[in-house]
Amino acid sequence: MKKINLSTRQKDIIELVKANQPITSEQLASKIGVTRAALRPDLAILTMTGILEARPKVGYICSQKSSSSLIYDYIRKIKVKDVMTKPVTIDEQTTVYNAIVNLFLNDVGTIFIENNGYLVGAVSRKDFLKTAIGGTDINKVPVGIIMTRMPNIVFVEPEDSAYEAAKKIIEREVDSLPVIERISEGNGDKVKVIGKLSKTNITRLFLKLSENT
Amino acid sequence: MKKINLSTRQKDIIELVKANQPITSEQLASKIGVTRAALRPDLAILTMTGILEARPKVGYICSQKSSSSLIYDYIRKIKVKDVMTKPVTIDEQTTVYNAIVNLFLNDVGTIFIENNGYLVGAVSRKDFLKTAIGGTDINKVPVGIIMTRMPNIVFVEPEDSAYEAAKKIIEREVDSLPVIERISEGNGDKVKVIGKLSKTNITRLFLKLSENT
Repeated sequence: MKKINLSTRQKDIIELVKANQPITSEQLASKIGVTRAALRPDLAILTMTGILEARPKVGYICSQKSSSSLIYDYIRKIKVKDVMTKPVTIDEQTTVYNAIVNLFLNDVGTIFIENNGYLVGAVSRKDFLKTAIGGTDINKVPVGIIMTRMPNIVFVEPEDSAYEAAKKIIEREVDSLPVIERISEGNGDKVKVIGKLSKTNITRLFLKLSENT
Repeated sequence: MKKINLSTRQKDIIELVKANQPITSEQLASKIGVTRAALRPDLAILTMTGILEARPKVGYICSQKSSSSLIYDYIRKIKVKDVMTKPVTIDEQTTVYNAIVNLFLNDVGTIFIENNGYLVGAVSRKDFLKTAIGGTDINKVPVGIIMTRMPNIVFVEPEDSAYEAAKKIIEREVDSLPVIERISEGNGDKVKVIGKLSKTNITRLFLKLSENT
């Protein structure tokens, strides 16, 4: 990932190619008024960086390649485990009221619900608000009653890319994904929550990418 | 923003510089077994891209520059107006209950509050949840009573960068920022809400950056 400052001559070459493509190095050299040999380093740089393409026996043309492939490559390598944070979990027997208190104490938007230490559900601020104005007795009803239940929860694993996580967040319209670890048992897979990846984590990641670190 | 595929010789040069820096082009040429002239295009590419630095009368050294400056430059150019979406606004006389209904109907996380069409406050899902469990009569109390009031609202303007918006979201711990337009009047500036920029918008932007568009 490197910054390229093109020289005036390289910018001139790009303009000449745009206006006359395909154009040979001889034609370029004569238009600029230098020798072919003098142009060689500039043409090497412009083709290496993908700005120009050299077609054998035809000449130079402007490349059709995407200009953002570099960013794309870099971002796709960032993994969930690189950006995830600590999840807040409570047992499914906890009352809705206590779950809400927990939400505020930890200042999170989603709480993950466990039974015997395994992930069984999730409740968001939106779910809590719906319940709170819906006439439910939040001091009596356990959070397990109002949660979104497995297997309806979208999750990611630590080795997944942050990109895949962001895609799930947007497509499934959720604020936060549990990061899970699969535990093999006799009667199929169970999962443990080992992290969370939320829109906040993605926003922080975006901030980090924008800063010259 | 261009992808650079280094040649084997260029990679060899980088390794030689790493091991022997500072090293002159004569020394590099003799180690590789070619002429200085033959190395010129490769050295031009490696210095242009910022991988190597040429120090006059000293030789080539590996650059200390950040490897992510390209991404940084690209991202910083994205503006609030490029990623903002439509805001949901209601009058400050609306009851808290009706404001919550509005929140659900529009499926947003924050509602902006107006008086005579000017921005006077904001209420988030978190604020509503706090009110709903706090014993307030949400059918009677107007939303203006529970809102965060100007000038305590963080906002951005259309020409600000998406980076600045993400920074404000993280630093001020809010989910969504109003995008405002200043209206000059006799008794000082008033502001109108013309958009919103939330963690969802930033997550969508991150997704777009990750996709090869």
